[in-house]
Amino acid sequence: MKARLGGEEGKHKFVLKTPKGTRDYGPKQMAIRERVFIAIITCFKRHGAEVIDTPVFELKETLTGKYGEDSKLIYDLKDQGGELLSLRYDLTVPFARYLAMNKITNIKRYHIAKVYRRDNPAMTRGRYREFYQCDFDIAGQFDPMIPDAECLKIVHEILSDLQLGDFLIKVNDRRILDGMFAVCGVPDSKFRTICSSVDKLDKMPWEEVRSEMVGEKGLSPEAADRIGEYVQLHGGMDLIEQLLQDPKLSQNKLAKEGLGDMKLLFEYLTLFGIAGKVSFDLSLARGLDYYTGVIYEAVLLQQENDHGEESVSVGSVAGGGRYDGLVGMFDPKGRKVPCVGVSIGIERIFSILEQRLEASEEKIRTTETQVLVASAQKKLLEERLKLISELWDAGIKAEVLYKKNPKLLNQLQYCEDTGIPLVAIVGEQELKDGVVKLRVVATREEVNIRRESLVEEIRRRTSQL
Amino acid sequence: MKARLGGEEGKHKFVLKTPKGTRDYGPKQMAIRERVFIAIITCFKRHGAEVIDTPVFELKETLTGKYGEDSKLIYDLKDQGGELLSLRYDLTVPFARYLAMNKITNIKRYHIAKVYRRDNPAMTRGRYREFYQCDFDIAGQFDPMIPDAECLKIVHEILSDLQLGDFLIKVNDRRILDGMFAVCGVPDSKFRTICSSVDKLDKMPWEEVRSEMVGEKGLSPEAADRIGEYVQLHGGMDLIEQLLQDPKLSQNKLAKEGLGDMKLLFEYLTLFGIAGKVSFDLSLARGLDYYTGVIYEAVLLQQENDHGEESVSVGSVAGGGRYDGLVGMFDPKGRKVPCVGVSIGIERIFSILEQRLEASEEKIRTTETQVLVASAQKKLLEERLKLISELWDAGIKAEVLYKKNPKLLNQLQYCEDTGIPLVAIVGEQELKDGVVKLRVVATREEVNIRRESLVEEIRRRTSQL
Repeated sequence: MKARLGGEEGKHKFVLKTPKGTRDYGPKQMAIRERVFIAIITCFKRHGAEVIDTPVFELKETLTGKYGEDSKLIYDLKDQGGELLSLRYDLTVPFARYLAMNKITNIKRYHIAKVYRRDNPAMTRGRYREFYQCDFDIAGQFDPMIPDAECLKIVHEILSDLQLGDFLIKVNDRRILDGMFAVCGVPDSKFRTICSSVDKLDKMPWEEVRSEMVGEKGLSPEAADRIGEYVQLHGGMDLIEQLLQDPKLSQNKLAKEGLGDMKLLFEYLTLFGIAGKVSFDLSLARGLDYYTGVIYEAVLLQQENDHGEESVSVGSVAGGGRYDGLVGMFDPKGRKVPCVGVSIGIERIFSILEQRLEASEEKIRTTETQVLVASAQKKLLEERLKLISELWDAGIKAEVLYKKNPKLLNQLQYCEDTGIPLVAIVGEQELKDGVVKLRVVATREEVNIRRESLVEEIRRRTSQL
Repeated sequence: MKARLGGEEGKHKFVLKTPKGTRDYGPKQMAIRERVFIAIITCFKRHGAEVIDTPVFELKETLTGKYGEDSKLIYDLKDQGGELLSLRYDLTVPFARYLAMNKITNIKRYHIAKVYRRDNPAMTRGRYREFYQCDFDIAGQFDPMIPDAECLKIVHEILSDLQLGDFLIKVNDRRILDGMFAVCGVPDSKFRTICSSVDKLDKMPWEEVRSEMVGEKGLSPEAADRIGEYVQLHGGMDLIEQLLQDPKLSQNKLAKEGLGDMKLLFEYLTLFGIAGKVSFDLSLARGLDYYTGVIYEAVLLQQENDHGEESVSVGSVAGGGRYDGLVGMFDPKGRKVPCVGVSIGIERIFSILEQRLEASEEKIRTTETQVLVASAQKKLLEERLKLISELWDAGIKAEVLYKKNPKLLNQLQYCEDTGIPLVAIVGEQELKDGVVKLRVVATREEVNIRRESLVEEIRRRTSQL
C-alpha cells in the first residue's frame, strides 16, 4: 500500500501511506467493527453505565508518572507555543483526571475511544499504535468486591456474545502478589520490577523469567525459586482455601486481605454463574503501576489442532483491575476515589472476526439501502429525483444512480453488487397509471404498486429481511 | 475548573484542566450529542452511504499545501524518531489520501471523527480546538450536479430533523467567483487572496473588506468597486438568468460554465422541494484552497427579537463543495477523481441544543436502566445478585446498589434520581412464594409477579415508555 509519488515537476516526492502502526478502516471493516461496538455498548448499557468523552490529548504532566516503564511509549505533541501536550495512552488516567477535576466520587461510566502508544506494531496480530479501547469503570466507595464481580460478569457477557470461542478469565490481586514477594524474600524496593518480570510469564517460560530476576534484577536465587513455586499455581476456591492455610502467606497482612477478597469474589462469581470460566492465577501480574487490588485478564483459548485436547492462549482480549489510588494523585488534597474497571481490547477481537469473515462465504453489506430508484427508459431523471425525494422524506433508505440516462441493466447490477433488495422502477406507462413497478432483486418478481402505497410496501417488504 | 495541585511533598504542582480549546463531555452532554449523531447518521445511511475511518494523524507531508493560509493552524507531533506526523485538520484531505492510496474511483461514504485546529477558541459559541466533523462525500465521475444536489438535500434534511429553527443554505461556485474576479479586473495571481477577503463578508462589512483588498492586497479601487457590486447580489433562478445575460460575466468561459451548472442545480433542488431554503449568494467564497466548483454553507437564522421581522445569521453549521483536483494531488499519475461533499459542524449545533435543554425543564436520562433489583430486608445481597444475573442474561437493563444491606428508601431514591422506572424487590416472603414484587416508581403501584414471568413483564412495561 505504498507508492512513491512525484509531483508534476518531479520535485515533490512522498510516500502515500498511513503513519506506521496505523490503518484505515474501509466500509467492510467498519461494518464488522460496528457489530463489535454494538455488542459491547449494549452490554455496558445493560449494566446501567453512563458515557463520557475526553480530549484525545492531555497536558503532558497529567500523564507523567502513571505508567512506569511504559511512559517512553507516550506520543508527545510538538511545542508550538502554549501548553505541552501528549496523546492519551489509555482511557483510565483521563477518567481519573476527569473525576478529580469535577469532584465526582460516584459514577459508573463507559468510554470508547482511540488511544496511542509508540509501541512496536504487530498489525497482523491486531497490535497497532492507534487502537480503540472500550472501558467500563465503577468509581465510588462500596462494599467489597461487588463492583469487581460485575466487571468480570461484563467480560463474560461480551466474550460470550461475540462468539469468539472458548475463553478464560485469569484473576489475581496486587496485594497477594506483594504479600507473596514479601514472604519469598524480595526486598520492598524490588517489588515493582519483580512484578514486571512476573508479568512476562504469559510470553516467556519460567526459566527465562527467573534468569531475568536473578541476573538483571539482582534477586537472590532462593527468593526467585520460592516465587517460582507460587506462580505456577492456579485454580479456584480450592486454591484460595489452600493459600489461606499456607503457613507463610497467611501470616502476611496484605496477602491475607487479598485472599479474603478473592474468596468473596469467587462467591459472587458463583452467584453470577461464571466461576467456571475464571481462574485464580498467581502468575498474573499486569504491567501498569496504578493497580492496587484485584487484577484480571481475559484470554481466548484455541484448540491446538482439530484433534488436540489442549487449549493454548492466543492473547489477551480484555483486562483491568482495581486502582484505588489514581484519582487521589490528581486531587489537591489527595482524596481517594476507589475505582475498578475493565478495558476490552477490540483490535484483536476485530482481527479474529475479520479473518473469520474472509474465510467464510458470508457477504457483508456495507450500506442499508432498501430500494434503488430506477428507470427503464431515457429522459426520466427528473421523475427519478422526484420519487426518491418522496422516499427520503418518508424515511426510506434509497439510492439513485447519478446518471441522466442509466441502462436498466446497470441499475440492476448495482443492486446485485451492493445487496439492495428492491428496485422502484418508473416508466412512461407507470407514470400515466399512477403506479411504480417494484422489483424484488433476489426473485426478479415485479409488481405494480400504487404510488401512494409505495412507502408502506417498501417498509413491509424490507422489515422481513 | 482549574485547581493548583501540590503533591504530598509539595514539589509536584500542576494545573488540573483539559488542554486549551478542549473540553470533556459528561453524561448529560453525551446524551445530547448521541441524539445529534443519530439524526445525522440516520440521514447519511438513508442516502446509501458507507462509512470509513482513518487515523487521527497523517504524515505531515500529506497535509502540506492543502489548506492555504490555514496551514499554520495544524498541530504537529513531536519528532520522537521515525515519521513526522500531524493531527488531521479536516476529514477531506485524509479522504482524498485514502482514495488515491486504494485507487478508489467511486464511493459514497460518511466519516464522523474529531479534527484539530490550533485556532483561537471561542468555546461559548461552540468553537473548539478539538471538534467533531460529520462528513458525507460522493466521489466519482457522474453527470453534472446530481450528487451536488443530493449534498444540499442532506443538509436540508439534517437541519430540519434537528429542529434548530429557520436556516438558509447559501450556494456559489468557485468558477463564478473566478470569472467575476477576471471581469472585474483582478490579476490572476491575486484570485486566491481576494477570494479570502470576500470570504470575510459574513463577519465584516463591505467597507472593511474593500479597504483590505485595496490597502493590504494592492487591488485597484475600480476593481474592488466592481466586485462590490457583484457580491451584494443574492437570489434564486431569477438571479442566475440575470447573470447569464450579464454582458461581462456571460463572456467569461468559467463563469458561464458555473452559471450553467448553478441553473441545473436549482432545477434539481426544485425537484427535491428545497429550493426555497437555498440562496445563490455571490458573497459566499469559503476559505479552503481545494474547492473547484459549487460551494455552499448553511447558516441558522434567528429572529432579532420577538416582534422583529428581520432574520440575522448566527453562524455556519454546515459547509462544503466540489473538489475535483484534490485526489489527483495524491495520485502518482495525477489521475483525478471528482468529489463533492458536505461537512456538518456539530459543535455549534450541540451548543444550541445544550443551551436550549438547560433553559427547559426537560430532565434528560443518561442511562437506559429498566429496573433496579432491590431488597426490603437485610442479608439478601446474594438473592439480589442471583436475580440481577438472571435479568442481565435475559437482556434486561438492570442495576443493583453495591451495598450489602442498602435501605429500601435509598434504593427507591436512586430510581427517582436516575429515572429508573421499575424496582424488582426480593424479600423473605417473595422468595418463599416464588415471586418478585415489581414496583412502578412513578405511581408507587406494587404487584407480585411470578419469577418465571418477570423478564416478560419488565419488557412489556418498559416497551410502553
